[in-house]
Amino acid sequence: MRVLGVDPGLTRCGVGVVDGTPGSPLTLVHVGVIRTPAEEELALRLVGIERGIEDVLDRFRPEAVAVERVFAQHNVSTVMGTAQAAGIALLCAARRGLPVALHTPSEAKAAITGSGRADKAQVTMMVTRLLRLKEAPRPADAADALALAICHVWRGGAVSRLAAAQQLYRRGGR
Amino acid sequence: MRVLGVDPGLTRCGVGVVDGTPGSPLTLVHVGVIRTPAEEELALRLVGIERGIEDVLDRFRPEAVAVERVFAQHNVSTVMGTAQAAGIALLCAARRGLPVALHTPSEAKAAITGSGRADKAQVTMMVTRLLRLKEAPRPADAADALALAICHVWRGGAVSRLAAAQQLYRRGGR
Repeated sequence: MRVLGVDPGLTRCGVGVVDGTPGSPLTLVHVGVIRTPAEEELALRLVGIERGIEDVLDRFRPEAVAVERVFAQHNVSTVMGTAQAAGIALLCAARRGLPVALHTPSEAKAAITGSGRADKAQVTMMVTRLLRLKEAPRPADAADALALAICHVWRGGAVSRLAAAQQLYRRGGR
Repeated sequence: MRVLGVDPGLTRCGVGVVDGTPGSPLTLVHVGVIRTPAEEELALRLVGIERGIEDVLDRFRPEAVAVERVFAQHNVSTVMGTAQAAGIALLCAARRGLPVALHTPSEAKAAITGSGRADKAQVTMMVTRLLRLKEAPRPADAADALALAICHVWRGGAVSRLAAAQQLYRRGGR
């Protein structure tokens, strides 16, 4: 199963693609960060995020997309842009009929470190180890996106199949 | 100048298209609401919003798009979805190279009623009067979208031309 994880943001949107199945070793397919300039108009930044996500979907053809769930309580100054970047990722995935899932940061951390309150260094260390990389993934920002993708591989098979079935059912019903 | 106003929301996204120039009578071109079912998965609802906005852009070809600015402080339970719907509207407009503007609810109310704290009935009454309609626009939810479009016509010409020039400049520079 190939999963794209997205750590949404306007200035830096982390993207990580991982191959794996629960109980088998994981493989890193791609890691990167989509950046949009802070001085650019919001609408153009959203177009930049869409292009970046579409490019990753085109090149790596994931079967599912996992996006970090954004909470209204956190970082009030940036939360709207983060929510909008997350919305674009969901839109791009759903437009292609890909199943999507939202995982909280705590869920992703707990899945790969055993603790929902693990710090960034611990998450990066476990991502590096689980993907059997010689050094920490670069850019460092994107470790969270890989953590989401790994979380989804491990939690996700059943959820994704369910979501896909629901989508097919809904389409058939219309 | 033809302006699309968007009052963003996932359950009801108001859209209103108005023709006008500052100092001349305004004309209603279109008013409607894009609805997505609350029980549907978020990603699919965002696809529904995108389709609805694209449909309005295709049919009525506005020259500018005005979207209500969403604040993190308001309605915490629905604000993320509202921000994401607003993001989709901005994305659709910018993808076509249309200038976009964000106006606050207070700015729209003040532009058409003279008071930033006008209530819904007052906004609806002024929208009805300014567009010289025989009765209040239906659906009622969409009066706010029309108010945004009117606000943009009156405030907006200069802003839009500036934004368009900036977009052209930015594209040329890349």
